[in-house]
Amino acid sequence: MTDTLRITPLGGLGEVGKNMMLIEYGDDAIAIDCGLMFPEHDMHGIDLVIPDITYLQDNPDLLKAIFLTHGHEDHIGALPYILPEVPVPLYATPLTRGLIEIKLKEARLLSKIDIHTIDTDSVIEIGPFTVEPFHVCHSIPDAVGYAIYTPRGLIVHTGEYKFDDTPADGRPPDIDRLRRYGDEGVLALLSDSTNAERPGRTPSEQIVSQAFDKIFARARGRIIVATFASNISRVQQVINTAMQYNRKVAVVGRSMVETVKMAMNLGYLTVPEDILIHVDDLDDYPDSQIAIVCTGTQGEPTSALVRMANQEHRQVSLKAGDTAILSATAIPGNEELVNRTINNLFRLGVDVIYQNLMPVHVSGHAAQEEQKLMLELTRPEYFIPIQGEYRMLVLHGRVGEEVGIPPERIFVVENGQVIEFDEDGAYRAEKVPSGHVLVDGLGIGDIGSVVLRDRHQLARDGFVVVVIVLDEQTGELVEGPEIISRGFVYMRDAEDLLDEAKERVIDLLESGNVHRDTASTVVRDNLSQFLYKRTRRRPMIFPMVVEV
Amino acid sequence: MTDTLRITPLGGLGEVGKNMMLIEYGDDAIAIDCGLMFPEHDMHGIDLVIPDITYLQDNPDLLKAIFLTHGHEDHIGALPYILPEVPVPLYATPLTRGLIEIKLKEARLLSKIDIHTIDTDSVIEIGPFTVEPFHVCHSIPDAVGYAIYTPRGLIVHTGEYKFDDTPADGRPPDIDRLRRYGDEGVLALLSDSTNAERPGRTPSEQIVSQAFDKIFARARGRIIVATFASNISRVQQVINTAMQYNRKVAVVGRSMVETVKMAMNLGYLTVPEDILIHVDDLDDYPDSQIAIVCTGTQGEPTSALVRMANQEHRQVSLKAGDTAILSATAIPGNEELVNRTINNLFRLGVDVIYQNLMPVHVSGHAAQEEQKLMLELTRPEYFIPIQGEYRMLVLHGRVGEEVGIPPERIFVVENGQVIEFDEDGAYRAEKVPSGHVLVDGLGIGDIGSVVLRDRHQLARDGFVVVVIVLDEQTGELVEGPEIISRGFVYMRDAEDLLDEAKERVIDLLESGNVHRDTASTVVRDNLSQFLYKRTRRRPMIFPMVVEV
Repeated sequence: MTDTLRITPLGGLGEVGKNMMLIEYGDDAIAIDCGLMFPEHDMHGIDLVIPDITYLQDNPDLLKAIFLTHGHEDHIGALPYILPEVPVPLYATPLTRGLIEIKLKEARLLSKIDIHTIDTDSVIEIGPFTVEPFHVCHSIPDAVGYAIYTPRGLIVHTGEYKFDDTPADGRPPDIDRLRRYGDEGVLALLSDSTNAERPGRTPSEQIVSQAFDKIFARARGRIIVATFASNISRVQQVINTAMQYNRKVAVVGRSMVETVKMAMNLGYLTVPEDILIHVDDLDDYPDSQIAIVCTGTQGEPTSALVRMANQEHRQVSLKAGDTAILSATAIPGNEELVNRTINNLFRLGVDVIYQNLMPVHVSGHAAQEEQKLMLELTRPEYFIPIQGEYRMLVLHGRVGEEVGIPPERIFVVENGQVIEFDEDGAYRAEKVPSGHVLVDGLGIGDIGSVVLRDRHQLARDGFVVVVIVLDEQTGELVEGPEIISRGFVYMRDAEDLLDEAKERVIDLLESGNVHRDTASTVVRDNLSQFLYKRTRRRPMIFPMVVEV
Repeated sequence: MTDTLRITPLGGLGEVGKNMMLIEYGDDAIAIDCGLMFPEHDMHGIDLVIPDITYLQDNPDLLKAIFLTHGHEDHIGALPYILPEVPVPLYATPLTRGLIEIKLKEARLLSKIDIHTIDTDSVIEIGPFTVEPFHVCHSIPDAVGYAIYTPRGLIVHTGEYKFDDTPADGRPPDIDRLRRYGDEGVLALLSDSTNAERPGRTPSEQIVSQAFDKIFARARGRIIVATFASNISRVQQVINTAMQYNRKVAVVGRSMVETVKMAMNLGYLTVPEDILIHVDDLDDYPDSQIAIVCTGTQGEPTSALVRMANQEHRQVSLKAGDTAILSATAIPGNEELVNRTINNLFRLGVDVIYQNLMPVHVSGHAAQEEQKLMLELTRPEYFIPIQGEYRMLVLHGRVGEEVGIPPERIFVVENGQVIEFDEDGAYRAEKVPSGHVLVDGLGIGDIGSVVLRDRHQLARDGFVVVVIVLDEQTGELVEGPEIISRGFVYMRDAEDLLDEAKERVIDLLESGNVHRDTASTVVRDNLSQFLYKRTRRRPMIFPMVVEV
């Protein structure tokens, strides 16, 4: 196996190869990205989801470094959880590093981890790998893909990208570099599949600037722009437009303030003097000279925009004449919360502008024609669509076929599927543990399907605990039954039902037909039937028999 | 108040005036529609949501009849719950009646309710109202709007509509009738706002037929088309295309079979002889001669398509070469389940075609240019946008302004807001109870915010019950503490934590500092702190102190 190159997508939730890709040769491996996922709707109470790194734990000296493509949560967010297990050096561009440092500081890990700052001129040698970051355009500045020279050939990992010739940060994609790799010969391309459902090209960030321009030109009141804290480019666009229309900009919300400060320090945000004002000073300016940047595009209950929409924001009280811009798409699953927020803003008389109405957001991912361009520039021998749900990988694979890659050289795989490259070619090898690990409070991985199933049932029909005290000697009922129940019925209105339930338990126990050892089971079955018949609900029922 | 006309949207969840509109004059009222809503994500365990009819219950003889616009759940689905409270006659077109009867039969109400079949030539007089149904095009046949002549003037309720000149059932919209109402003079237009976010016109149903044609022309294996059971027009389109390409059609799933049978009996589905086959006979035909119609477009776990996608369907086992068409849009909130289904189908090698890829579904609702046409045909004095979330009503209101309706004659209101029309004009009057009622099993309205909050907390962090038995005389601990917990930690791995919790409770009780009367509170607070510190989770904690 020593002269075999192995490529494996590790971890993920629905999406394949998004949060972590492993590249392995002999006794060495590097990972690209280490991101987190947000829990799905049926993962009750889970805070976030991280990749399963059992494979790395089983092979403790294998991983030598993690390379980060950009600073979004789904690419760097698992570092605080994974690094304690595999404390390897990180490689990241300055802005990505800045975002990582905020995280590691919070997790008290910053002093324990080596972070190397890289740029698109860097060449990093690690074991058998030589790694070159190359510039790509994405919805955050300083994003890179990686060219990884291995003894088996050159691997190109695109990171998340689109081909935007007029990006917000003024740095167009590095077509020449990609062509150079193509000329050198690419063994395998690992490319972003997110927008494989979309024909054509993703519009440039410029159309967002144009939309902002139109909105700022006509708005008379305050303008509130909500976006992701990490979307530095979008913040820059707001600042640019505000400047043009003589508006001051207040940055509102802790995460947004922190990120903006860091990006300014690192030179990734160009902010003219005096344009930023503090949220407490908003009253010093007429509404027509104010723009506010904040979070809340996903309808997050604690975000600034949602507080404003609910008239619960301490410093900003919205009113008719104000304009709110939601500069992001709702992540699937968040639509309800986002729609509620938009409705509430409209209820205040605010003019709300969101993606259905104007192009105030564009995707940061390549659509089909750009995916073709990537394939044509790099001309890979093998093609591995990554970063997408399975259907997107399939569709991206078809894009590959359209530009002439033979189907047998396209690998549409699941997380954990190892693809091996040896002298005879490439093929699917074994599967390694992958999947995902649930984080709930301090617990990492302790919540599994059993607890989730219980939470699901508790959420649906609640629980009933019945406490019965029996005489140790005679088995006779000494006290109880007492009932505790939540989430099943409204207790105040259900006294009759619960009294009847107690009577049934007493009758059962006094009938003399119930043996002490099986009392618990008999009570549960009997109550379960009774309550279902009366309510058509199935609460979890727990009899607790105490003997004194 | 006797010569005042009152119009009130009643009930709803997010959407205004969708599920029930009340039209009242003097001592008489009629309602348009009586639909249900599907619970939002945070309504744990709720089966469905119906309008709050407190106002009708407080005024028991007010309501004289319910007119139904079409047979979708959100327009007829609450009848089985509302009719027992207000057993009034219903008026519906034949197909809508057919769908209602299925429901009332299940609820054992069919014999108790008068249902009148109407058509677009009907004129129904009820108290001071004269009601004329008029034909509209929607995603179900036999849909109507209503012209309601009242002593104050003519009210036009559009129902749900689009202007489709080439609809699946061949019946174009009744432009002449609408123009006639406009000529007669319309006091108020109540019009469908669902697509007020969309510029232009909604495409005709014909583009779906064209998409089906393309897909059937190239598919070699079986074709599975999923749609809503009520979407009779879509089923007709599948049958037409199947016929053209010599495929037999199997209808799969109870609700689909039932609806198709009913629609055939009533003549709303034209099915050539011998084209329908039973699902058990699929093996008698080559794959290339098979089409299957079923439900499952929302990723419903028990639907035929989802069972097929999970390889759990008893009669249909999908394989590479088969084609699945999802002929519907995901209802907001269902995206995760729908995407999972699509991914799983792709995993089986099935070619999946859904709206992102081809126009295999179109909306049944008017977009902005059609909304303008409706306004221009009817030329109402007042305009009440209905059937949409608040933001859609606002946007629809703007469409009204664009065609020249003065803003003060446009009423964007919430559910429960009465709009009164008297000799001086129209204005917002009082608010009547509206909102919604939650149905959970047999319970209608018994689950409110308290139980939902408990379910929410149980879902997030579970519960812990601590049973302590004290000596009645001495107050000393006789038995316990025993702990029951679910949804909080994985019990098998948490023995240490729970043992420690028990120790703390024993120490507390034996310290002599805890009075019997406050034991419960002290134990809860103490355990709560302890468990939060150790897990960063907040389970519901219930100490139960029993004295013997």
